[in-house]
Amino acid sequence: MIKHATPDHPVHDLIARRWSPYGFDGRPVAREDVCALFEAARWAASSFNEQPWRYIVAVREDAAEFERLLSCLTPGNRSWAGSAPILALGVARLNFARNDAPNAVALHDLGLASGNLSVEATARGLHVHQMRGILPDRARELYGVPAGFDVVTALAIGYAAPAEDLAPPLRERDLAPRSRRPLGESVFSGAWGEAAGVLSSS
Amino acid sequence: MIKHATPDHPVHDLIARRWSPYGFDGRPVAREDVCALFEAARWAASSFNEQPWRYIVAVREDAAEFERLLSCLTPGNRSWAGSAPILALGVARLNFARNDAPNAVALHDLGLASGNLSVEATARGLHVHQMRGILPDRARELYGVPAGFDVVTALAIGYAAPAEDLAPPLRERDLAPRSRRPLGESVFSGAWGEAAGVLSSS
Repeated sequence: MIKHATPDHPVHDLIARRWSPYGFDGRPVAREDVCALFEAARWAASSFNEQPWRYIVAVREDAAEFERLLSCLTPGNRSWAGSAPILALGVARLNFARNDAPNAVALHDLGLASGNLSVEATARGLHVHQMRGILPDRARELYGVPAGFDVVTALAIGYAAPAEDLAPPLRERDLAPRSRRPLGESVFSGAWGEAAGVLSSS
Repeated sequence: MIKHATPDHPVHDLIARRWSPYGFDGRPVAREDVCALFEAARWAASSFNEQPWRYIVAVREDAAEFERLLSCLTPGNRSWAGSAPILALGVARLNFARNDAPNAVALHDLGLASGNLSVEATARGLHVHQMRGILPDRARELYGVPAGFDVVTALAIGYAAPAEDLAPPLRERDLAPRSRRPLGESVFSGAWGEAAGVLSSS
């Protein structure tokens, strides 16, 4: 299933083709693809090259570990994310390793890493659905996540299922068109709220 | 100048080729490229499709606005970032628009958007250097950034200068090889700190 963005300005195919499915088919993901996803995350930019991201990953082939990770999601997310062949938790180190000072962009830079992961996934025909609906305290306890690290997101990764194979309400969710605010409401110049002139047609 | 990552697992060219230069050459960026960068950011994923990102952008052709935005960077960043033809501030809305509840992934999702922007930049031969070294209070005052929004990052965008055209210390910085922690120190399975088995060669 292909669910393109409908951009007002042409963007690269790897940006336009990315979306977050609720339905995954059962196909496993090859080991080299899994490696590439996290390798892509590894090469993201970060403040002072801190690389504040950590991931905890479980593949469905390891049923016990997979169930354990799935149990760290909210019930609503557990109901669909279990169909994905790979689950991961995204974790951020809140202070810099070099001097223990607070890293104000720790979560931001985890986002850069997970964004890279999503681009690599798209390039390999895979999809990623990120979630905030997680049980961070449960994850901390189950995996022994130390103080100074926050469990921030979960990621369901795999091949998107054809929407027609899904039951409602997932089917409707995956068939819904993608939508975004107009660009001029997000990109300003000169003063807050003033649409950037460089983006308007001359 | 091309400064590839040295990945342990093959990753897409748009991931491997991205890096953050200190030296930019003076070439302006075409309007359609600027549009594409922010359009790519627009199509990032976000929690509840909140799209918490906002950007304030200035192009060098508009000298007064460019200087104003440049003045929101720390002196250290101001010294090199002024050579870029485009500067931007990355801003995050901290609460959800729909119910005013705190958005725990506001900064994370700004990272996803700026990551998309960087991928689009790479695809167009451009480079992005993101910074945390900014003066958020000054930016808030100059642009009238309202309460509930945080100025998080700055982005310098343009064509990377050949390192040999740069004076020290920028030259040395841009010639330094890229480095990252080994993957097994960031991606765990089963317990915190245990390198994920799926990533090791079988």
